[in-house]
Amino acid sequence: MSAPETKSKENAKGKTVLKIPKGTREWVGPEMMLRDHVFNTLSDVFNRHGATPLDTPVFELKEILAGKYGEDSKLIYDLADQGGEICALRYDLTVPFARFLAMNNIKNIKRYQIAKVYRRDQPAVARGRMREFYQCDFDIAGEYDAMIPDSEILRIMVEAFRGLGLGQDVTIKINHRKILDGLFQVAGVPEDKIRSISSAVDKLDKMSWEEVKKEMIEKGLTAEVADEIGSYTQKSGGRDVLEFLKSNERVAANETVKEGLADMELLYNYLDAYQIADKVSFDLSLARGLDYYTHIIYEAVIELKSEKSTETRIGSIAAGGRYDNLVGMYGKTKIPCVGVSFGVDRIFTILKQRKEDEKLKQRSVDAFVMAFGAKNGLLVERMAVARELWDAGIKAEFSPKAKPKLPQQFKAAESAGVPVAVILGEDELAEGKLKLKVLGLPDGHPEKEGRLVEKTKLVEEVKKLLEEHGGPKALPLR
Amino acid sequence: MSAPETKSKENAKGKTVLKIPKGTREWVGPEMMLRDHVFNTLSDVFNRHGATPLDTPVFELKEILAGKYGEDSKLIYDLADQGGEICALRYDLTVPFARFLAMNNIKNIKRYQIAKVYRRDQPAVARGRMREFYQCDFDIAGEYDAMIPDSEILRIMVEAFRGLGLGQDVTIKINHRKILDGLFQVAGVPEDKIRSISSAVDKLDKMSWEEVKKEMIEKGLTAEVADEIGSYTQKSGGRDVLEFLKSNERVAANETVKEGLADMELLYNYLDAYQIADKVSFDLSLARGLDYYTHIIYEAVIELKSEKSTETRIGSIAAGGRYDNLVGMYGKTKIPCVGVSFGVDRIFTILKQRKEDEKLKQRSVDAFVMAFGAKNGLLVERMAVARELWDAGIKAEFSPKAKPKLPQQFKAAESAGVPVAVILGEDELAEGKLKLKVLGLPDGHPEKEGRLVEKTKLVEEVKKLLEEHGGPKALPLR
Repeated sequence: MSAPETKSKENAKGKTVLKIPKGTREWVGPEMMLRDHVFNTLSDVFNRHGATPLDTPVFELKEILAGKYGEDSKLIYDLADQGGEICALRYDLTVPFARFLAMNNIKNIKRYQIAKVYRRDQPAVARGRMREFYQCDFDIAGEYDAMIPDSEILRIMVEAFRGLGLGQDVTIKINHRKILDGLFQVAGVPEDKIRSISSAVDKLDKMSWEEVKKEMIEKGLTAEVADEIGSYTQKSGGRDVLEFLKSNERVAANETVKEGLADMELLYNYLDAYQIADKVSFDLSLARGLDYYTHIIYEAVIELKSEKSTETRIGSIAAGGRYDNLVGMYGKTKIPCVGVSFGVDRIFTILKQRKEDEKLKQRSVDAFVMAFGAKNGLLVERMAVARELWDAGIKAEFSPKAKPKLPQQFKAAESAGVPVAVILGEDELAEGKLKLKVLGLPDGHPEKEGRLVEKTKLVEEVKKLLEEHGGPKALPLR
Repeated sequence: MSAPETKSKENAKGKTVLKIPKGTREWVGPEMMLRDHVFNTLSDVFNRHGATPLDTPVFELKEILAGKYGEDSKLIYDLADQGGEICALRYDLTVPFARFLAMNNIKNIKRYQIAKVYRRDQPAVARGRMREFYQCDFDIAGEYDAMIPDSEILRIMVEAFRGLGLGQDVTIKINHRKILDGLFQVAGVPEDKIRSISSAVDKLDKMSWEEVKKEMIEKGLTAEVADEIGSYTQKSGGRDVLEFLKSNERVAANETVKEGLADMELLYNYLDAYQIADKVSFDLSLARGLDYYTHIIYEAVIELKSEKSTETRIGSIAAGGRYDNLVGMYGKTKIPCVGVSFGVDRIFTILKQRKEDEKLKQRSVDAFVMAFGAKNGLLVERMAVARELWDAGIKAEFSPKAKPKLPQQFKAAESAGVPVAVILGEDELAEGKLKLKVLGLPDGHPEKEGRLVEKTKLVEEVKKLLEEHGGPKALPLR
């Protein structure tokens, strides 16, 4: 069963319309398993780094959310005023985290949260824009020595993508807001234009330099200033970018650039210790939209194959940075933070596509227990055998009929992709034996006809067959 | 850090009040781990039986919920009307399940859902009544031969409590609505009083027979009728209850009782096949409040020690039954269902209490990497060692300072309950060695001073120490 999206069945006679709210979806079956696999992989990585999971209420007091999202505040879902407190559904996981820190007077924490957030936006289901969707945030809050938590976040990103089997395909672009701002100063961008020019630069991954230059000129820069920015921001690489910046006297003399350079020098030492420098690309065009980043910024990108053409495009599947001024907003003390948000919906879509490409079949049940040629259906016997399998941790099912027909049982097992059939016959049982059969074998395969085994060796023999013929195991499900 | 409950910090100057909404709570740290352990144990059992997890949107169209909860409809949380669809937060998991089946025209499914539900009730946090809380529902929907899914639910309950370490303490009371209704008929209870007398009988686990009898008489029964009911409903046991009922001619002749008896005879055969008859108590006083049960009903109970006295009381931690008429409510076809709802909040509280009783310490980090006596703090070296541990799946942390002091590092490790310290010293590193130390050992213990190991054997040696001295492992966290 695959997850239905806002499927509706209208009823002309004024009966209840059976649908789920616009912009929401349901998760069930293999999609739910794959989704949980993504969540579990990420959680495992976070836990390995000593992080604690956090679960906050789905709604917050309205005043907690008020004034935090600017223009986008209109997208907040309010609860109806039914007396008592005025509440609204959470819009992201950052504001609840900030509220949590201030409320409990927590000065430092490594926390993660994987949870649904709500935005009353115009949904575009095909493009993945939903009104209810998952966010996965990992953040390190607290005063620490420079770049230590920052480099750990990058390490966590690499571990996460490795865990998801995407390690080969993902590059993490990094940059530093201070370097970028300093470069704009050096080039002569007026202070009040820096954020707007920054957002033009951020488009260099999707637009040509000529187009970006045009946008900058429209925004009020001269062609010379734009060209100088271009000479910096088209540079990317590794540690050599540090040398590139230091080799330019005017750049190297800028105080803001210097601050950023000091951070990045440290960072590269730490990336070496973590053996991940090769996964990271220092990209001076990376600017990130959000205003609240103050120091390092990063974005993990992956090449996506288009479904309709042979073109590939670059997709962002995780992003973040250091934001030292945001999380103290409720408390008296500023709490510096660095964090990353994984685009779990996009990661899910990529993995789903790959699984389909590779024709991977997930099995949710290991063994199907059947009766053959018995007048009484051997129900109690099938139950007892299933019980033995369950006790051994083997996922097992049987037909929920007293006297099922054999073809029906085979059909049920095969359509569910169950690899092993345990077949009970009266004569065999009388001799203390059972037949095990691997399903889906080609004709002529030596195991095609199955094998008789001692009933006492049931579990051991089923495990052996699963080992040999079980195919790709079900994703660890939880 | 333990989870705060509606903690508030009022601010006289009219600043934002930092609290979470009334009747909600947050989960973090060891409590969150224990909660996830409960969820994962239950999910594992459901998956072993071939069930599929389902995740539905947190809000439904208001009309889907309308008219489903009678009096309690006033407890539904509505979303504000901000234009577009009118929605409300889900009140339980049953109505969304019914809507899911009808919307997707699903005729049979084994599904489970563990999710938050919302009730605008007067919260009583101390007694565990919350406005946002978890439900865990497992249901088998579909037309099957009698008592096959029903007995599997009972088996699942036993497996779940075993998995949670409560197998020895839990008894599952069972009864059958048809038997109960038939007994009332035989005793002469008028048809329109059956539900109300049924609810009086259900109190026999908390009240004496005299009190229940008094209530029945107040509800309009004669003392004789009440006494006859008493003679039936005070009976409990195993298969012998079937014999008890059959031995009474008037009871055995009642058509409604007969239907129930046939079911229960079948059930006992199946319980034997599943080897769980000893965990089940056939209790003729079990009635269950909800009107919608049509056949078998059950309730898992556990003896709870009172915190304040030596008294014990009986708590219900899971309950359910067959409800054949409820889930078809949106569709054209009736879909018979049998299911169970686990009281996950109460289970969590019991396990938490036990863990405290047993002074079990959970560890969330396996190893703490420290520097000793080195002028430069050996930061990059600590990072490289942590990286090796992470690569081996070992949960590791280190002090996020460039030059931490040794006592601070020990304090951080010990207060977090980390069992193993990996200590780096310049001289030892020069010889390719590291010191491993088990934390929290008593004076005089042969391992107290730690051991020097080859740096190349780091992972292997740490694993060995964790094996020997790691204490109780962290609960599997996800």
